[in-house]
Amino acid sequence: MALTLYELAGVGDNRFSPFCWRTRLALAHKGLEAETVPVTFGQKEKLTFSGQDRVPVLVDGDTVVADSWQIACYLEDTYADRPSLFGGDIGRGEALFLNAWSDTVVAGGLFPLLVNDVFACTEEVDKPYFRKSRETRLGKSLEEVEAERDSRLPGFRKSLEPLRMVLARQSFIGGDQSAYADYIIFGLFQWARLSSPYKLLVDDDPIYAWRERMLDLFDGLASGAKGFPL
Amino acid sequence: MALTLYELAGVGDNRFSPFCWRTRLALAHKGLEAETVPVTFGQKEKLTFSGQDRVPVLVDGDTVVADSWQIACYLEDTYADRPSLFGGDIGRGEALFLNAWSDTVVAGGLFPLLVNDVFACTEEVDKPYFRKSRETRLGKSLEEVEAERDSRLPGFRKSLEPLRMVLARQSFIGGDQSAYADYIIFGLFQWARLSSPYKLLVDDDPIYAWRERMLDLFDGLASGAKGFPL
Repeated sequence: MALTLYELAGVGDNRFSPFCWRTRLALAHKGLEAETVPVTFGQKEKLTFSGQDRVPVLVDGDTVVADSWQIACYLEDTYADRPSLFGGDIGRGEALFLNAWSDTVVAGGLFPLLVNDVFACTEEVDKPYFRKSRETRLGKSLEEVEAERDSRLPGFRKSLEPLRMVLARQSFIGGDQSAYADYIIFGLFQWARLSSPYKLLVDDDPIYAWRERMLDLFDGLASGAKGFPL
Repeated sequence: MALTLYELAGVGDNRFSPFCWRTRLALAHKGLEAETVPVTFGQKEKLTFSGQDRVPVLVDGDTVVADSWQIACYLEDTYADRPSLFGGDIGRGEALFLNAWSDTVVAGGLFPLLVNDVFACTEEVDKPYFRKSRETRLGKSLEEVEAERDSRLPGFRKSLEPLRMVLARQSFIGGDQSAYADYIIFGLFQWARLSSPYKLLVDDDPIYAWRERMLDLFDGLASGAKGFPL
């Protein structure tokens, strides 16, 4: 059965969406291959068939699934005989917490650090929409937000302390091996790597070493996407 | 094999330690009973045999285990045929993240809200040590910290957003049933309930309803400890 993944694309077909990377890594974890279809900010009509307008969307034969969390659950349940993303109901429930923490604390912290660099990665035709929607959310210009980022960085690094404490003790959130919880958070760091030269982590941070391990997974799936030096 | 749990006790034998509640609920989850031994702040010599001075300490026959996380892992591995606390390696790894998040974000947020009430719950003889150690950490008097708590409360509630997002979707962090991840966080709310009348949560917060469910678990194990109204 052919799998198709619709994912966000920026300038030069840069596939930088953190949510799409969660799905890419989940597919690799399950040993599944998918054809990918790029969707720029201005091409949301490509997603009309899914009944909503956000990526990622996974098509598996006759089944259409939107939202990275729903896709992970779909893959776990449909391909239950392949390596588990969650390791059972408890692990799935806890992963939902990690998903919520990532989407509030990590994504919320990264957004003002990266937004002007992400802007630079969007297609010219999409820039007016991107600027307007982001500046409305931020209440400031993209340039003003970028100018403040050095002062925000210490708070962002501090907010990662729970992750740091775990990765100081074990290789992955999933333990000795990576699990969906790792892909959830790494997707955001991959988004950063693909869109911004800004240095987020100091080199001796356990999160830095984990990110390197994540980049190496599945024969370098994530490191194969051209990004900025870390 | 007889189990013994050494736990913190305040005025009136109030067993308010959040870390000891994690262990109490983990024992109940495993269907295990333990004799408990109260240890006040001033009775740390009772723990000398464990080679350290912090509660909880679990004694299981010849085995002595300190630290609530280590105790949970010990119970999971030793009583592997009983209901699982983690649901496997992935769930254990993710639970370690929940443990780190709780001990930094939740405990760190609760500490200034509750500290003066916890002071009131400590034995007279322990009060000077308690005040001095806490005021050194806070850089202010206990009374000054309490006077600021209304201004801190919105930030505390906001910091719980990842937990709120999960509990809006499912009954427990563990899914349909509670798991150690639930006991980790609930222990801190039980500490609050047993030591302070301060209202932490609004009534329609999904976390409020979850706390009620937690109080009811194991024939009302947690609600059986006399606390302040919620």
